[in-house]
Amino acid sequence: MLAEIITIGDEILIGQIVDTNSAWMAKELNAIGIKVKQITSVSDDADHITEALSRAEKRARVILITGGLGPTKDDITKFTLAKYFKMGMRRDAGVLENVEAIFKRGNRPMIESNIRQADVPEGCTVIQNKNGTAPCMWFEHGENIIVSMPGVPFEMMYLMGEEILPRLTKSFKLPFIYHKTILTANLGESFLAQEIADIEDSLPPSIKLAYLPKLGQVRLRLSTSGPDEQQLKDEVEIYARQIITRLKPYIVAEDDIALEEAILNIMKKKGLTLSTAESCTGGYISHLITKHPGCSAVFAGGAVTYSYELKESVLGVKADTLNTYGAVSEQTVKEMAEGAIKHFNTDYSVAVSGIAGPDGGTEGKPVGTVWIAVANRNKVVARVFSFGNKRIQNIERSASSALSMVLNLLKEDVN
Amino acid sequence: MLAEIITIGDEILIGQIVDTNSAWMAKELNAIGIKVKQITSVSDDADHITEALSRAEKRARVILITGGLGPTKDDITKFTLAKYFKMGMRRDAGVLENVEAIFKRGNRPMIESNIRQADVPEGCTVIQNKNGTAPCMWFEHGENIIVSMPGVPFEMMYLMGEEILPRLTKSFKLPFIYHKTILTANLGESFLAQEIADIEDSLPPSIKLAYLPKLGQVRLRLSTSGPDEQQLKDEVEIYARQIITRLKPYIVAEDDIALEEAILNIMKKKGLTLSTAESCTGGYISHLITKHPGCSAVFAGGAVTYSYELKESVLGVKADTLNTYGAVSEQTVKEMAEGAIKHFNTDYSVAVSGIAGPDGGTEGKPVGTVWIAVANRNKVVARVFSFGNKRIQNIERSASSALSMVLNLLKEDVN
Repeated sequence: MLAEIITIGDEILIGQIVDTNSAWMAKELNAIGIKVKQITSVSDDADHITEALSRAEKRARVILITGGLGPTKDDITKFTLAKYFKMGMRRDAGVLENVEAIFKRGNRPMIESNIRQADVPEGCTVIQNKNGTAPCMWFEHGENIIVSMPGVPFEMMYLMGEEILPRLTKSFKLPFIYHKTILTANLGESFLAQEIADIEDSLPPSIKLAYLPKLGQVRLRLSTSGPDEQQLKDEVEIYARQIITRLKPYIVAEDDIALEEAILNIMKKKGLTLSTAESCTGGYISHLITKHPGCSAVFAGGAVTYSYELKESVLGVKADTLNTYGAVSEQTVKEMAEGAIKHFNTDYSVAVSGIAGPDGGTEGKPVGTVWIAVANRNKVVARVFSFGNKRIQNIERSASSALSMVLNLLKEDVN
Repeated sequence: MLAEIITIGDEILIGQIVDTNSAWMAKELNAIGIKVKQITSVSDDADHITEALSRAEKRARVILITGGLGPTKDDITKFTLAKYFKMGMRRDAGVLENVEAIFKRGNRPMIESNIRQADVPEGCTVIQNKNGTAPCMWFEHGENIIVSMPGVPFEMMYLMGEEILPRLTKSFKLPFIYHKTILTANLGESFLAQEIADIEDSLPPSIKLAYLPKLGQVRLRLSTSGPDEQQLKDEVEIYARQIITRLKPYIVAEDDIALEEAILNIMKKKGLTLSTAESCTGGYISHLITKHPGCSAVFAGGAVTYSYELKESVLGVKADTLNTYGAVSEQTVKEMAEGAIKHFNTDYSVAVSGIAGPDGGTEGKPVGTVWIAVANRNKVVARVFSFGNKRIQNIERSASSALSMVLNLLKEDVN
């Protein structure tokens, strides 16, 4: 069963926002056995929406559309859909009630454009949106199902989870889609591929292997689909085990999890705790860790010490060290890591100090110079990196390298 | 001048990664006068790539393709392009040299698949990729330009910035595209629209107004294009001024900047400093702030205090307060904010303590309950929010609300 996603909104096409909805929707669709054939982003333009929809209808049987359902004039999705399906508009009493309730709860007056949120194409099934005023609309068109949802992520997610996915599951007899992902670190994709070339060659045509490199990590993904879930898993597992055995030194996790999740899992199991001491990464590492439910069993907290003063007062870095070697130095970053262990009373810590840029570089320490230290109660290891001149990339690459270093120290110790 | 972006990779269609490249590329293309008509994500499948490309060639004159250029078997873009353009393959000496240099620098052996990175379609212009082994390929096809780039963000960004954008600028006589964005907070889009209905009605057809709501903020964007940059700006400015004057109480910034950037700008101008004390947001607020160049003039640092112990030792929250009222309480969050001011010696601070979920809720304090306090040296204000049961959303909405509260306190004080 194939689906397509159409996201509507000029804000996507001028790059004002990143479309995060599509990836979320694709993952959820996969989980119920629906494969996404294509994702198309089009402008708030009736002809363009119509063209994209009519093409999508030829390739897929389920088309999920987000965006263009706001109360303002630039939003035209529902009128375009009415025209496409040759339907008139009607005012839906249920939607009106929902809009009124939302405004009453917020203690705000309602205006004409809010009332018009209740207008929907005549032939669609209306699905109530409890989190917003734009209704969700379900159309059946020949053999196809077309659903129009608001683009606001939490409204879309709620509607998908509570309404659309269950209804799609009921509408079709769906196969299982199974992805097995193996997370590796410290070896490039071409070398991984060389190591497992014979295993890759022995894969049956029904199993597809993909390599997804990112920031020093590579994900290996085995994908397949079919009617029997257990059989799929068993078959993929045979090849996954071969790959995992072959690549043992590089394996971080046998699931599609993030590096920091793998760290949290190991530390939780061993009853170990972690803290962070961040300068140029500015809280990004601790954000990556605290995104994950249950992190509090491992993560005590950390400090973001941008200023010299905070490096001294919060982490106990010596003024002498800072003045002699500078904030971006092996000595400082080691004292930051040791200070985190001591002051935050954790088993492990990771510290980062670097020049994220675009300013602040010197001849000896250009923008992109980043010192990272990881420590436990016995040992502190530091390395210097050179990540180039883009601020966001420096932050991301620093965080990824810091997490890799935590994992390596952890592996040394727990093995 | 219209462009289209085609991103290739099953990882996008199964939702394993979010396509962040397209937004970045669209923004850069806009800046040189090229409008993006459509963004299409397709699978690593030759027929599908071919179909998408041939459709795109009918709608646009510039087609930028990313992805599918790795050394592993799942990557088929360049072979598909060679077939599409009816070209053979040749080994490019320059690319081979680049690949060899990269492996030499990394002190790693080269294998056959790395050498094959130097194979390119015969009729394309090769553009060297200094940051990776996959070459960038530029095709001229009738009136159209088609460029294939690696999907790794920093390789793509470098190639776009240094090579593709300058070459596109030289290839066409491009108009100017001008977007003026106004950031507002604390009023919903329908009310903003009602407030400025007469201004919106008076806009000439050449200027388009869009409303982009997100987490309690709404961006208003005026867009236009034409041959004379100054004239465009002057014309848009007339209407922008009217809107800004009308919506004065809700205006956060007169540029397309983030809320935290608006805060940094105001504080920098006034010589004020800021610190953070985060529990459930786990460093996300300080990450948002430190993403921005120059933030160190304002931001001293902060603490991520997940545990009771760190709330006491780092921020000076009283054990009594924690035991009596709990970590998620008005009393605790106020002491966190006051502690940040005192211990980090800043003029302002913001503190967040909540239950991000999915676990940890109680009957009186369900998941999604978040206390936020903002303080300066004279005052501390706290509010409680209820954000629902999704962890990532709770973190994002908490951060957005916290920043809004900082801005409001700041506005109170500096006005």
